[in-house]
Amino acid sequence: MARPSLRENIIEAAVERFHAHGYAATGVKDITDAAGAPKGSFYNHFESKEALAIVALERYGESRRFDMLCDESVAPLARLRQHFEFLRDENLETRFARGCMVGDIAVEMADHSEAVRATVQSSFTYWREALATAISAAQQAGEVSRAQEAATLASFVLNAWEGTLIATRTDRSAKPFESFFTMVFGVILR
Amino acid sequence: MARPSLRENIIEAAVERFHAHGYAATGVKDITDAAGAPKGSFYNHFESKEALAIVALERYGESRRFDMLCDESVAPLARLRQHFEFLRDENLETRFARGCMVGDIAVEMADHSEAVRATVQSSFTYWREALATAISAAQQAGEVSRAQEAATLASFVLNAWEGTLIATRTDRSAKPFESFFTMVFGVILR
Repeated sequence: MARPSLRENIIEAAVERFHAHGYAATGVKDITDAAGAPKGSFYNHFESKEALAIVALERYGESRRFDMLCDESVAPLARLRQHFEFLRDENLETRFARGCMVGDIAVEMADHSEAVRATVQSSFTYWREALATAISAAQQAGEVSRAQEAATLASFVLNAWEGTLIATRTDRSAKPFESFFTMVFGVILR
Repeated sequence: MARPSLRENIIEAAVERFHAHGYAATGVKDITDAAGAPKGSFYNHFESKEALAIVALERYGESRRFDMLCDESVAPLARLRQHFEFLRDENLETRFARGCMVGDIAVEMADHSEAVRATVQSSFTYWREALATAISAAQQAGEVSRAQEAATLASFVLNAWEGTLIATRTDRSAKPFESFFTMVFGVILR
């Protein structure tokens, strides 16, 4: 296998550091050290930490398994559940540490960088639309009531998920996940 | 009126700076400058920035109007709605900037400071219990179904609120509030 490029190492280190420590708490030197790159080389690859954050957010988004929401070999409601189970299990593996990197960076940066805010917004929009498509398919299949619009349901469920991750890391407990699954799959999507 | 003490000025400045800029992005000097205090005086009042964050979180919590949730002169469901309308209107005043300072500090610090995490947890627990008490009263009054436990409903609604604030600042839009009120008061609490 070809040795990954320095740029690639920097992106991977940035995803790891931003996710684990947050944006402001991570310096360029932390990232280059973790990437095994000289600090001076950073600016050959990225204009700024902000520019790197945008690429890191896109990279993180690719790991969210949005494809699960579009897998038509699985019934719509089952794939919605499996998607959130995948995300929950990932969080259980880190023993409740770390949230959703998109939400975390939104909290830190949405008010302070227009470019980062726009990237976070794109990620959430993509995710919300994938959720709405699956919810709409569940409505067409008669699995979910049509009383509420799929877009409203998708927006609310996504926001509830983001808040649930704040609660799991605060409480260091899986209990907020239980409330999420009970309410989303027992009350909201039915 | 007596001149507020330097300590009080530092606390007020910390609430303002942490809320507007986040924990890591706010230095002790930013706070003492905003408080009109010499930087050296900080450690006469607080052992560390972390110790100040704990006091700032408690101060911020006092502004959340949890008392609205306990006001028995208002019907339980109406006071739940008024509580979230109060919080929504506060966010509209800042044109969607700033989230909930408790959630924001949870995102930045829950994985990195046990003392801060415990304070955030106390704040959320207090809030969740006040919500559960009002929801339970609404159930007893026949305003809300007893199909789900008040504690589960309170936990989920609080988490949905925290995520909704991430969405409003990301989208710079009141639309996530509309989904919240539609779903919470049209579907969940009924």
